Amino acid sequence: MNRDALVSAIFEKRSFLCVGLDTELSRIPPHLQSAEDPVFEFNRHIIDATRDLCVAYKPNLAFYESLGPDGWQTLARTVEYIGDEHLVIADAKRGDIGNTSRMYAEAFFSRIKVGAVTVAPYMGEDSVTPFLGFTGKWVILLALTSNRGSADFQQNRLLENDEPLWEKVMRTACGWGTPENMMFVVGATHPEAFARVREIAPRHFLLVPGVGAQGGDLAAICRHGLNEDCGLLVNASRSILYASSGRDFAEKAREEAQKMQISMDAALQEFKNV
Amino acid sequence: MNRDALVSAIFEKRSFLCVGLDTELSRIPPHLQSAEDPVFEFNRHIIDATRDLCVAYKPNLAFYESLGPDGWQTLARTVEYIGDEHLVIADAKRGDIGNTSRMYAEAFFSRIKVGAVTVAPYMGEDSVTPFLGFTGKWVILLALTSNRGSADFQQNRLLENDEPLWEKVMRTACGWGTPENMMFVVGATHPEAFARVREIAPRHFLLVPGVGAQGGDLAAICRHGLNEDCGLLVNASRSILYASSGRDFAEKAREEAQKMQISMDAALQEFKNV
Repeated sequence: MNRDALVSAIFEKRSFLCVGLDTELSRIPPHLQSAEDPVFEFNRHIIDATRDLCVAYKPNLAFYESLGPDGWQTLARTVEYIGDEHLVIADAKRGDIGNTSRMYAEAFFSRIKVGAVTVAPYMGEDSVTPFLGFTGKWVILLALTSNRGSADFQQNRLLENDEPLWEKVMRTACGWGTPENMMFVVGATHPEAFARVREIAPRHFLLVPGVGAQGGDLAAICRHGLNEDCGLLVNASRSILYASSGRDFAEKAREEAQKMQISMDAALQEFKNV
Repeated sequence: MNRDALVSAIFEKRSFLCVGLDTELSRIPPHLQSAEDPVFEFNRHIIDATRDLCVAYKPNLAFYESLGPDGWQTLARTVEYIGDEHLVIADAKRGDIGNTSRMYAEAFFSRIKVGAVTVAPYMGEDSVTPFLGFTGKWVILLALTSNRGSADFQQNRLLENDEPLWEKVMRTACGWGTPENMMFVVGATHPEAFARVREIAPRHFLLVPGVGAQGGDLAAICRHGLNEDCGLLVNASRSILYASSGRDFAEKAREEAQKMQISMDAALQEFKNV
């Protein structure tokens, strides 16, 4: 899904919600546990319940890999079920030397056929650029992540110009990709950072985890994060998937997604009015 | 495989060679292409030809993921075929928020049953520590990688004390794990760094890629890298796997591995004599 299609979907649905499919077998309601592929069965219900309220789905690879080889079948089945009306983001946080990153790009873009992959920047340019040459596909590079550990290295200031590492990562990567093929991960748990993010990358889309179970505040990130094309994909995983642990899980998931969509609609309206 | 077993294997075999199983379907000799699982067939021959010359095997996940869901079956089959006399390193470069890293640890240590996983440090402590609680298993953390892109961020000096990022990563991570459950990746393409590496982490094992196709020099890294327990695992992938593209590939792979083992024996001898 290219940028134009993504922006259109956002303004049609009045939503920039990404639903994270971090499906844990142990948290699937009991009545689905006997299905042939319980994780897919669960995902299918979640997808059906949220399709019109979100523009992206983000399966996190760890949850599928933890199922062993069958997990990749479940992932492939899930990606196929989502179809091409949503951006599918493989949250994989890959990154390796050039010839290896090319294999990862092949795995995700040509085999599993997702639209975007999250990539970790530690290994630098040749670990990232092999993901960039696929028309209509996206690299989503980790910049400032939502977790506590983001303080350990990402926020370290550099000697050369007193900027934190995550800013250097963003600035440098803006020279590798464009707002048409690269996004950045910026956690909702750092609302104070969004003004600076927009100075560095005014047009890029940002994938924002950390709203919901991790405690980030949607309004706070919209204040500085929104741009003319929206420019945000806000992810929620656990707060939607596990809104209920009973037979009504899909219905409750929809309610959670709808709450977010309504807040997003309001934020888009407010941005337009300012 | 715990540290004692690893050290014993190294001194028995007079080798600290790790054979990287970065098997590309397109580079497998023609006569194996019609096998049911050509990548496994190729790996099996490479393993049989090198077992006594190496102490570790390192399948790189990208090469298996690029085969789609079947690739994980091939990986699982390869890991099983290697058995428990060698350390099996999943070169996966994973790392995510805590609850996700726990799923990756589960995937690799409990499902695929490898002995070690490479992990990227960008997301900090809570992305790494979930891999540490498995008896006899290892985290191998990226510190200074072998590729050109290692200059982009890893070598950036930090304001707080003028040290490069990779040194801070190592120093910090020495507080998370121990020489019994953590190793570091230090590329052979940075021989000048090994003296400093040993100041920071005198006892830790180092996984050293970049000898062979990437041009690193074994003698140069041994000079400062070896310690009392050897402390090095030197990896070669392409130079061994693709030593010949014909029917004699396994024989030629063995010759390449043997050359390295002989140099390693000499380096261990020299270290003892100094």
